[in-house]
This record gives sequence, C-alpha cells and structure tokens, in this order.
Amino acid sequence: MPELRKDPVLGRWIIISEERGKRPTDFIVEESRVKGGFCPLCPGNEATTPPEVLVYGREQEGAGNSPGWKVRVVPNKYPALGIHGDLVKQGEGLYDRMSGIGAHEVIVESPDHRAVFADLPVEHLSLIFQAYRDRIRDLEQDTRFRYVMVFKNVGRVAGASLEHPHSQLVALPILPRMIVSELDGALSYYKYKERCIYCDIIRQEMQQDIRVVCQNDHFITTTPFAPRTPFEMWILPKQHASSFSKESRSRLRALAGIFAESLQRLSACIPNVPYNFALHTLPLRTNDLDHFHYHFEIVPKLSSIAGFERGTGFYINPMPPETSAQYLREALV
Amino acid sequence: MPELRKDPVLGRWIIISEERGKRPTDFIVEESRVKGGFCPLCPGNEATTPPEVLVYGREQEGAGNSPGWKVRVVPNKYPALGIHGDLVKQGEGLYDRMSGIGAHEVIVESPDHRAVFADLPVEHLSLIFQAYRDRIRDLEQDTRFRYVMVFKNVGRVAGASLEHPHSQLVALPILPRMIVSELDGALSYYKYKERCIYCDIIRQEMQQDIRVVCQNDHFITTTPFAPRTPFEMWILPKQHASSFSKESRSRLRALAGIFAESLQRLSACIPNVPYNFALHTLPLRTNDLDHFHYHFEIVPKLSSIAGFERGTGFYINPMPPETSAQYLREALV
Repeated sequence: MPELRKDPVLGRWIIISEERGKRPTDFIVEESRVKGGFCPLCPGNEATTPPEVLVYGREQEGAGNSPGWKVRVVPNKYPALGIHGDLVKQGEGLYDRMSGIGAHEVIVESPDHRAVFADLPVEHLSLIFQAYRDRIRDLEQDTRFRYVMVFKNVGRVAGASLEHPHSQLVALPILPRMIVSELDGALSYYKYKERCIYCDIIRQEMQQDIRVVCQNDHFITTTPFAPRTPFEMWILPKQHASSFSKESRSRLRALAGIFAESLQRLSACIPNVPYNFALHTLPLRTNDLDHFHYHFEIVPKLSSIAGFERGTGFYINPMPPETSAQYLREALV
Repeated sequence: MPELRKDPVLGRWIIISEERGKRPTDFIVEESRVKGGFCPLCPGNEATTPPEVLVYGREQEGAGNSPGWKVRVVPNKYPALGIHGDLVKQGEGLYDRMSGIGAHEVIVESPDHRAVFADLPVEHLSLIFQAYRDRIRDLEQDTRFRYVMVFKNVGRVAGASLEHPHSQLVALPILPRMIVSELDGALSYYKYKERCIYCDIIRQEMQQDIRVVCQNDHFITTTPFAPRTPFEMWILPKQHASSFSKESRSRLRALAGIFAESLQRLSACIPNVPYNFALHTLPLRTNDLDHFHYHFEIVPKLSSIAGFERGTGFYINPMPPETSAQYLREALV
C-alpha cells in the first residue's frame, strides 16, 4: 500500500509508492556528461570571463585574473539578471513587475577541470563554502537585493551547462517563493509550539535514528520524512542557527566535512548521479530568527520518476527515506 | 534588461530574460517519441488493462472490454495510489502520514494509436472532456477523496510513458499544494476587492489584448502575465465558473474547440513540442466559490531552459508572454 507523507514545514504532501526490491542501481541515470570543448573556467582562460569578484589561494598577490588560484568567483557571462540600474517597481493593471536587477555569479570550485566536488580535500571544500559566505556578506551591502540563492547543478540533466566544477549564486530583489513558504511554515509552528521546527526535526531524527545518514559535532545529514526523490538529503547545523552567512571558518570546515561524506555516500549508492543542491538561509539584512534554521537540500535527479510530477506538480517517490538512509549509511566511504 | 514578474494569484515571481531575436524554432525540442512495442491501450488488447470504468461510443451495447469504442477509461495498471482500504491518518512524532488511498485512471483518448490529441475532431475531443467530467462526478461520491487531478503528459520528456494518446486522473485524499496556494491567493484578493481575480485577469486581458491567443463565445486562451515557459497558455471560461464538473455538454464542446485551436497554434509554432496540461478546479464536494475560477494550464517542456529552475526552483523564461502570444496568434491553423 502506498503512503502519503506531509512535509512538516511546507505542508507539501508526497506519495511514497515503494517498488519492492528496488535497489539504488535500478534507478536510471541518463548519460549526463556536459559537452566539452573550450572551457572558460580553466586556468589560463581567466580573460574570457568577466573580472573576478573574489579569489582564494592565489599564489601571487595582486596578480588578478591570471592562473594560480584555488577558488575563483566571477560574474556569469550570460546573467539571468542585470547588475546595473535602479530597482523600478511598476504596476500594469492588477499585475506587478520589477526591473530585473540582480547579481548572477559563478563560483569556480577548483582549477582542475576534472575535479569532483565531493572528492575535493576538505580544506579546499571549506574555501568554497567560505566563498559562498563572503559573497553573501558582500552582496548584502547592496540594498537593492533581498535574497541570495546559492545552488549547484551537477550533470547535464540536472541543469549544468559547463563541465568544469562550479556552483552559482543569484542575488534577487525579491524573496523566492520557496523561502517565503518555509519562513511562513516555520513561523506557524513556532507560534504554536514556541520552538524551531527544524530543531524539533533534528531532535526527533536523532532519537528515531532511522533517517540519519551521518553526523559530526556540528552538523547532521538526514533524509527528510517526506522526500521528493530517493536519496534526497538535508544537511543542518545541530545547534539552532538561522543565518549561514554568520558561520565561522571552523564551522564551515565541519560543514565541508559532512558535505563531502554525504555526497560520497550518495555516489557510492548511485555512481555519476546528477543532482542539485541549494542553500536555504535567511533573507538579507534580517536579524537572527528563533523560528528559522538554515540548511542545505540535496536533490538527486532521477529521470525515471519525473513523469507524474511533471503532470501534477505532485511528487511520487518509489523509495521510503528510511530505505534511502539505510543504503547511504551502509555505503562504503 | 531582464524583468521580474509576479503571478498575481500565487505570488510566484519569474524572470523574463529575453534572448533577442529568438524565434520559436530556436527552442530545442529533444527527441521525444515514446518507445513503441506492444500497446495495451490499442483496440483488441482490452483484456490487458484492468476492466474499464467508463466507455463512450461503444458500438455494441453490453460488450464491455472489447473493441469498438471511442473513449475508454481504465484504472492504471501500475497505480500511484491504491483504491482499496480505509483512509488511516497517523502521526509519527511531529510528522504526519496517511494511507495512500486514491484512484489512478487512464483516459484512452482514441482507438487510433497514431491520433494526435489536438487534431481529433471537436466532437471526439468533447467526449474526452465529458469523460473527465463524468469520472470526477463519480469519484466525488467516494468520501475518502478530496480532489481529482486531471492531467496529460505529451512526449517522453514531458513524462509520457505510453505512445497511445491518453490522459490521466488521480483522486487524492488530500488537496495538492498548488490548489491550496491558488485557493488561498484567490481568496486574499477576493477579501480585498470582492471580485474574482481570474475574472479581473480575463477583463484586463481582453482590454489590453496583447496576451490573448484566441477565444470563442464561452472560453478564452491567454498567455499568463508571469509564465514559467515560452508559450505557456491558460484556458479559462469567460463567465465566472469555479467547478469544471458542473459544465454542460454544449459548453464542453466549446471548450474542446478552443483547446484544439490553442494546441494547433502551439504545434504550428514548435512542431512536436512536448507539453503537459492540467485542470485546476474546485476540491470535491465544495460549493461553488465566488473567488475561484476553474481553468486549464498548458505548459510546454522546453528542455533547454530548465537548468536555472532545477537549481533554484525559480523560473526563468527567455520569451515574454506578449511575444509568445503574437507568435501563437499569427500561427496558421
């Protein structure tokens, strides 16, 4: 018998319709290599991107936009939003529009074209998370922006268009709907219980111990109770923290550690799986909130299971998160 | 300069980032044929599906589950939800779950394996819409269900797994999040204005006449102000109507007419485009609402533009709906 489960924050119902005996390797992973050719993100080609806005680990001080770096952030050459101009809001009868002001940046994660995010040394991964943090802090100064979305697409079918390891960020003059829904859902719970719903989730997950994938002193990875796909994972700080951009370097190192472990477990279950991850954090220039808890959501893209969702907007998941968690826990790392 | 636009009902912002000079034929349509082989939906193979729950146009009365029909509705052989059993609701700590009770049915739209939905004679198309209506009316009697979703996936990349022309319906014991959001958004507007937001949209669209694709006496097709994709279309009744299942046969004929015209215009712009459509109507056993307006949403699946959305949950659309509407209006029918 299938089961319906409700995401406690969003109120989103999903269907768990287990296909018995299904193993991770039964999920179809479409050929997902991004096409090769000239790579604008490789060392030596720095002049083909817009000038860098942040760089870590450059060997020679002052030698901007040249090789010899570890992590490099550049504006997207084909940005979804434009960085210049005033934020103009207009009505058109009952409709609302706004000038498409925003920043769209590419975080080049390594000089090595063939590097795999999950397999980078933890010290190097920490630099990537520092780059996310420092770019958010910088963009927060621009009062036209209300939110910075940080995300990564891995594999062509998950939306990647360049092979070189990179993530992206978009600064927006509005709040994305997903974040509004999470803030609203978490606030409703807080009004009722006076507790952070994510803190309660973490407490329950640690107690039940059937969906926890791994943990360290500061962070926990769990498959959510109502996941959209097999092997969906959430990474959360164990202690209440609403703002990613306030994290210290040492805590980002712990985050890098659990991120690498979680993704390595995922790829041990489904080699070469395409996936997306996104940071869910506070809106810019917002005081810390007692009811919101920042986290990362990692969502594999398993093409064989998207048909129902396409038609209905309703997720159907052939593997309960307890089973996914068990595979992930048992995966060799 | 890109532009941000807000869906007036959902509050969902999308980015219109026009790629200048882009024409409909520039959108990549991936090979989208569904694989062939034995077809359980073809005449002669009736015994390979579960027994039919509705049939129209059968030549011989009483000869169930045999050839000689025009439209046939059967339970899905691999249903997402199970029809048998009680609706059991359970908590698990702070989480909620429910037994996966529901109906999952396939509307076989024609005996002709090669038929194209949009090119069926209007009289035949009307039968399909009657089948939607009559199945909703029947499933409404089952008090375990709260909503019936009717949808169609065309093309493999849009989620179709059978080539034979068919649509699907799912009866659910919960309300889908999209419908809850629409009802909530429409109610907020109604509380403020005491008018149906969809009626206001129709009035504004007819007045502005820059997004209207086509219309007849009873229905209008328009590209929405804040569309997720190029060529997204909404089909709405011109007079306020919240419930699809109350529609008369003559009005369904008018609906079939505008549906065919809209889809023919779409396919004249982008031949073989994969797409999804879904009916957005009232929850079951709900009295007519002054603030909600049933409608169909048709969303093409253009694979080249999904990357940003995958990562962010945020739609980016390279073609303003005014441009889409112009192409659709000018398309030869």
